[in-house]
Amino acid sequence: MYKVYGMSLSGNCYKVRLALEQLCAIYRWIEVDVLAGDTRRPEFLALNPQGKVPLLEIDTDRLLAESNAILCYVADGTPLFPDDRWLRAQVLQWMFFEQYSHEPYVAVARFICRFLPENHPRRAELPRLHERGHEALAIMERHLSSRRFLVAESYTLADIALFAYTQVAEEGGFAMAAYPAIQAWLERVRAQPAFVPMEWVGDRGGDSSQAAMDISLY
Amino acid sequence: MYKVYGMSLSGNCYKVRLALEQLCAIYRWIEVDVLAGDTRRPEFLALNPQGKVPLLEIDTDRLLAESNAILCYVADGTPLFPDDRWLRAQVLQWMFFEQYSHEPYVAVARFICRFLPENHPRRAELPRLHERGHEALAIMERHLSSRRFLVAESYTLADIALFAYTQVAEEGGFAMAAYPAIQAWLERVRAQPAFVPMEWVGDRGGDSSQAAMDISLY
Repeated sequence: MYKVYGMSLSGNCYKVRLALEQLCAIYRWIEVDVLAGDTRRPEFLALNPQGKVPLLEIDTDRLLAESNAILCYVADGTPLFPDDRWLRAQVLQWMFFEQYSHEPYVAVARFICRFLPENHPRRAELPRLHERGHEALAIMERHLSSRRFLVAESYTLADIALFAYTQVAEEGGFAMAAYPAIQAWLERVRAQPAFVPMEWVGDRGGDSSQAAMDISLY
Repeated sequence: MYKVYGMSLSGNCYKVRLALEQLCAIYRWIEVDVLAGDTRRPEFLALNPQGKVPLLEIDTDRLLAESNAILCYVADGTPLFPDDRWLRAQVLQWMFFEQYSHEPYVAVARFICRFLPENHPRRAELPRLHERGHEALAIMERHLSSRRFLVAESYTLADIALFAYTQVAEEGGFAMAAYPAIQAWLERVRAQPAFVPMEWVGDRGGDSSQAAMDISLY
């Protein structure tokens, strides 16, 4: 059985949870409170020297970091990560796009807007984050204007990876009305079998500490 | 035959060239001058709406962006990208680490230090870039202190992806003497069969415009 070390409030951790739920995987979710410094404690650093969640424990000798690498591992051999070389390359293209051109702007803007005080100096970053974030969203909008999903008209890891923070981009100050194709795609993702929302607390992954968490966080 | 649209001076493009050379692939290199605005011209945007290089043209209907997705495609079925699920996941983990935690700091610091004027306002970014870049290098140093290569004691795409900008980190103001394990690993990469340096101008990929380019650029 997998163990997932994650913070329910993190979109990168939510990706893993959504994929595991949709794959009907059995896993144990171990809540890690990044804001309280849990990922900087020696016991966690012994598991992941990078001090980051999510972290997948396959067994005691095999620990995997990086949300998108975890997605590729758990979805291997399933339609979420097609075997076809060209389809798989396109899925990976969108996953690298997400980590390089989308998450560092859309997720960080949301973190600043939602979780830092209104007078926090990091608000000075927002104009640049919005500019770059809108560039990423415009690329998605254009691509999705003639497609149901990001790759080959099928729901894949590319959709899961990009859904996590796009769905909460409004919280970062991104006016999403400008992106009708993205909004229609978000609804298609939400309509997928075994979909769970970010704030979901379920049987397979839930523990008591999650019950009070109804917000999502960068 | 592949076509690769790339700028010889870019580390992300160099990754693709190095892999193709080591795979003995036949390809045509099409030099794109990002600094002169080539990637913003309509003819290039028609190929890649993101306006970025490298771009791999498999055939006229199949174009692939994102350097690390291109590496996965061209190395599919070869030892550079192992078929084993766990090994492959680890390779992907390091490739996502490279794009999220290494390239945005190490490559950008180098770009600022080497290619912008000494009084450029972007120099104000350097303290933060150095702090984050050193965090990434420290993680590599720790990992490589007991290993020959990043994954499973074999040379893989993970090494190619992280070699590209680590080899020129000094140019960004990173004092690499602090990282002996990284330096030994850089030498092991350089000793791999069919290795080509960044400034290399070769038969398969060379065109006349490259001959004058003997520097490497973010």
